[in-house]
Amino acid sequence: MHKLVLIRHGESTWNQENRFTGWVDVDLTEKGAAEARQAGQLLKQEGYAFDIAYTSVLRRAIRTLWHVQDEMDLMWIPTVHSWRLNERHYGGLAGLNKAETAAKYGDEQVLVWRRSYDTPPPPLTGDALDAFRRDPRYAKVGADELPATECLKDTVARVLPLWNESIAPALKSGKRIVIAAHGNSLRALVKYLDDIADDQIVGLNIPNGIPLVYELDESLKPIRHYYLGDQQAIAAAQAAVANQGKRA
Amino acid sequence: MHKLVLIRHGESTWNQENRFTGWVDVDLTEKGAAEARQAGQLLKQEGYAFDIAYTSVLRRAIRTLWHVQDEMDLMWIPTVHSWRLNERHYGGLAGLNKAETAAKYGDEQVLVWRRSYDTPPPPLTGDALDAFRRDPRYAKVGADELPATECLKDTVARVLPLWNESIAPALKSGKRIVIAAHGNSLRALVKYLDDIADDQIVGLNIPNGIPLVYELDESLKPIRHYYLGDQQAIAAAQAAVANQGKRA
Repeated sequence: MHKLVLIRHGESTWNQENRFTGWVDVDLTEKGAAEARQAGQLLKQEGYAFDIAYTSVLRRAIRTLWHVQDEMDLMWIPTVHSWRLNERHYGGLAGLNKAETAAKYGDEQVLVWRRSYDTPPPPLTGDALDAFRRDPRYAKVGADELPATECLKDTVARVLPLWNESIAPALKSGKRIVIAAHGNSLRALVKYLDDIADDQIVGLNIPNGIPLVYELDESLKPIRHYYLGDQQAIAAAQAAVANQGKRA
Repeated sequence: MHKLVLIRHGESTWNQENRFTGWVDVDLTEKGAAEARQAGQLLKQEGYAFDIAYTSVLRRAIRTLWHVQDEMDLMWIPTVHSWRLNERHYGGLAGLNKAETAAKYGDEQVLVWRRSYDTPPPPLTGDALDAFRRDPRYAKVGADELPATECLKDTVARVLPLWNESIAPALKSGKRIVIAAHGNSLRALVKYLDDIADDQIVGLNIPNGIPLVYELDESLKPIRHYYLGDQQAIAAAQAAVANQGKRA
């Protein structure tokens, strides 16, 4: 049996401000850092260890991983940083306050952009797009692959090559793996693993900073999955994520 | 021209306590963390950027690198963690206070163990050796390669394969590289780069947390090298390192 642990980054400054973040490289809040450290302590208490770590190229995920590695005494393990694990690209919505966007466009349109499987928000354009394309962390990504906006379907499409070409082979070779990433890149993996329907996956909320364990059979089919920690607190955290797009 | 930046980790808790550390995995002090952050700020101010980072599997070097990466907005670059960049293995001296060891064996014997090129200290033995060999970070190192003590000559011998097989080819392919490591693993590199004689290298002191820049020609021969930052402070830091083995 293979075990895979997924961790959504701890609270970020823009989670706190309720803004669309996407690929904007905001950091964790103090609370987010504490969540990440707690995840690491929990994994250590439960006897977990990892051979390889995967994360995105965004600092809120990397810092979450660093806290986990630090707590687990695993700062030295090989780590793969991939843009394919980045958050969904929110295009022109990035930086906007979710409640303001909801007030302007209506809860329904915002919910479509946030949760429709195949409707991307308006793309990034102009100077913002140029600056984004000059970012050195995307220098090696082909122009045809680098998104200017994404629906969840697009995110799934660019996450899966990393799964197929790197993560799945490593799991099959017996490596114990942790992935520290984002709400939607993790949703993409969960959708694939559990074969969740397009119209169902958008309702699945992964709370910040709580280890999600998948037990997989030898062909990497999930046997079961569960969150580590206080189950009541986890349910409350999931509800909080689901409410982020609503007006206060 | 190629540029290579070497950084010795910031002050560790055992630097502060004046104890032989070697492969014991102690952390940075607050001062050491501040030194590392300052190194990162300095590199950023001076316009440096890196494509790959190398470090050891010891947390004082990794955390130094993390601080540098954090300050430079380079948390996302590929990082190689190699035991070959670890500090010199101090064998049975690890954990002993340098001043106490000097009082017991005399300044001269301690200076021989610290600074002779080819006289290793007494090896690690018994339970301490067994525990060390069970450390998961060395699980993939061959039993014939894993040292139980080292003189500087031994350290040079195990650092160079990483240079030849990984770092040098990456430099030649145009990659900008930072190496965050330890006093003696960096001495090993400097000895090789500048072709320093066996009896000279032991007198070379690399201060904690100060970027050491090597400019290399296309065949990786050094053109020149220099420390970044306040030159007077650097001279004082070098003198402090040289005095660590003497009795107070």
